[in-house]
Amino acid sequence: MKIPLIPIIAFLLAVAVQAAEPAKDFRVVDPANVMLIDTRYGQIVVELAPGFAPNHVARIKALIHARFYDGLSFYRVVDGFVAQGGVGEEEGKASPKWPPLKAEFDRPLGGPFTPLGNADLYAPEVGFEDGFPVARDPKAGREWIIHCPGTFAFARGNDPDSATTEFYIVIGEAPRRLDRNLTAFGRVLSGMQYLQKLQRGNPDVAMGVIADPAKRDTIIRVRLASELPPAQRPTFEVMRTDSKAFAALLESKRHPAPEFYGNKPFPILDICGVTVPVKVISP
Amino acid sequence: MKIPLIPIIAFLLAVAVQAAEPAKDFRVVDPANVMLIDTRYGQIVVELAPGFAPNHVARIKALIHARFYDGLSFYRVVDGFVAQGGVGEEEGKASPKWPPLKAEFDRPLGGPFTPLGNADLYAPEVGFEDGFPVARDPKAGREWIIHCPGTFAFARGNDPDSATTEFYIVIGEAPRRLDRNLTAFGRVLSGMQYLQKLQRGNPDVAMGVIADPAKRDTIIRVRLASELPPAQRPTFEVMRTDSKAFAALLESKRHPAPEFYGNKPFPILDICGVTVPVKVISP
Repeated sequence: MKIPLIPIIAFLLAVAVQAAEPAKDFRVVDPANVMLIDTRYGQIVVELAPGFAPNHVARIKALIHARFYDGLSFYRVVDGFVAQGGVGEEEGKASPKWPPLKAEFDRPLGGPFTPLGNADLYAPEVGFEDGFPVARDPKAGREWIIHCPGTFAFARGNDPDSATTEFYIVIGEAPRRLDRNLTAFGRVLSGMQYLQKLQRGNPDVAMGVIADPAKRDTIIRVRLASELPPAQRPTFEVMRTDSKAFAALLESKRHPAPEFYGNKPFPILDICGVTVPVKVISP
Repeated sequence: MKIPLIPIIAFLLAVAVQAAEPAKDFRVVDPANVMLIDTRYGQIVVELAPGFAPNHVARIKALIHARFYDGLSFYRVVDGFVAQGGVGEEEGKASPKWPPLKAEFDRPLGGPFTPLGNADLYAPEVGFEDGFPVARDPKAGREWIIHCPGTFAFARGNDPDSATTEFYIVIGEAPRRLDRNLTAFGRVLSGMQYLQKLQRGNPDVAMGVIADPAKRDTIIRVRLASELPPAQRPTFEVMRTDSKAFAALLESKRHPAPEFYGNKPFPILDICGVTVPVKVISP
C-alpha cells in the first residue's frame, strides 16, 4: 500500500504548530472576573462580564472582597427555574453600605458578535460575544445577555433600580421573560451539576423561598480566582466564539450525527442549547 | 404604569370557579399509566401516554411487571441533557425476550389540542393534549410529544426501529432535535428535583456513560401505581389543558406580574417553559 507522505507531514506540522499555540481558539479568562462559589456539593465557577454591567460587577467584587456571602445561603431554589443566594430574609432592606443599583439591563451594540445563524422567538438577533449568549436589537442599538441555563444575574424588587446584594443563577429551561427585565452579568463556566443538587423550595409557597434556614444549603465561601495565590489558582479557558473552532462546533450541532439523526435533520438551534466549551487547567 | 386588569380578573375568576368545583379542571390520571421510579433521593413519577405510542407503553408495562428495572441504574446522566436508565452495558444486545420495537415517532392528528397561542421555532403548531406538550404538522396530518424537561422516551441505536428496554428523561434545556427522532411517550409529573441529584457522567467521555458501576445511582424499583394496594396508592391529578383554568394560567404567564415585569412585557411563551399543574393526593 502506498503511503502519501506529504499530507502526513503537513498534518504533523499542523499538530506541532497547534501544540505550540494551544490557546489559539481559546481565551484565558481574567482571574479577576472568575467567581468561585463553594458549596458542600462542589465548586461553582462563574465568569463575570464587566463589559455588560460595570456597576453590578464592581458591586459583586466589593461584596466578595468584604466576604459578604460567606456563610449565607441559597434560600430560594425553584427546580427548573433559578437558584437564588444571599441574605434572604433581609432582601429588600437596603443597607446603607450596599445601596440600590441603577439597572444595567442592556448596553449599546459593540461586542465581537457571532450570530447563531437562525431566528429566535424573543429577539431580532441572537448570538455570542466572548462566550456569552447575547441578544441584539439593531434598530434600538442595544444588546444584552440572554437568560439561559447558567446565566448569572442580580435579583431586584419591583423597582427596576433596586438590586443590592442578592444573586440568582438559572438552573432550568431558559426563562426568556427575564431578558432585559433584570441585570444579567455572568455565566457558569463549570459546576452546574452542583447547583442542581441544591435543596429545593416549594414554588407554590413564598415563591420557592425555603422557610426553614436549617434546610437551606450554605454558601460556604465566595472568592475571585485572582484572590488565590497563583500556585492554588485554576485557570479557565473559554472557546473563542469568533473562532473557526466555534463555527465548526455550531455547524456540527446544526447537522448532528447523520447516522443517528439522518431520519429528520433539523437545522435550527436554540441559543440556550449551545454550551460554549470551557477548559479547566488545575494549578 | 398601566396594569392590564382583564387577565388578572380572568385568572381570579378561574381560581374561584376551581375552588368551588375542585375536580372540574383536573383529570385523575389512570393509575395503570402512572410509573413510580424509586431512587435514593426520592420518587420520580411519570405519566405514560399510550395514545401516542401504544407499543412502547405496552413494552414498558411488561418490563415493569417483569421487575426488569429493579436494581439497574441511571448509567448515562448528562447534565443539562438527559438521565438514561436501564441495563447499560448490555444496550444494543437485543434480548429474545425484548425484541426491537418499531418506532412510534408520531401519530395522526386527533387529540384534544389546545394551542400555545404563539409561534415555535421547530414545528408549525405547538400546544397541549391531556397535559402533554405536543407539536403538530397539519399538512402532514401528524402530531408528536415534544422533548421538554421531564419528557420520557426510549433510547435507540442508529436504526430507528431499535429501541428495546433503555429509557431516558430530559433534565435540561429542551433538546428539540430529538423530536420525531425518538419515541417520546410520557412526562414527569413529580420528582424532577430527584433526577437533578443523580450522579453525572462526563459528556466528553463515552457520551456521558459512567464507566464505574459503583458511581451510578441505582433504580431501586419501578412500579405502576395500579400495582400498589389502593390504600397505599397516591392519586395524581393533572390540570386539564382544555380547561378555562389552564387558559387563564397561560394568559397569566403571557402577561406576568405587571408590577414587576411592567418594564417590558413579553407576550411570547416557550412551550417547554409551561409546566402543567399536578396535584398529588396521598393515600
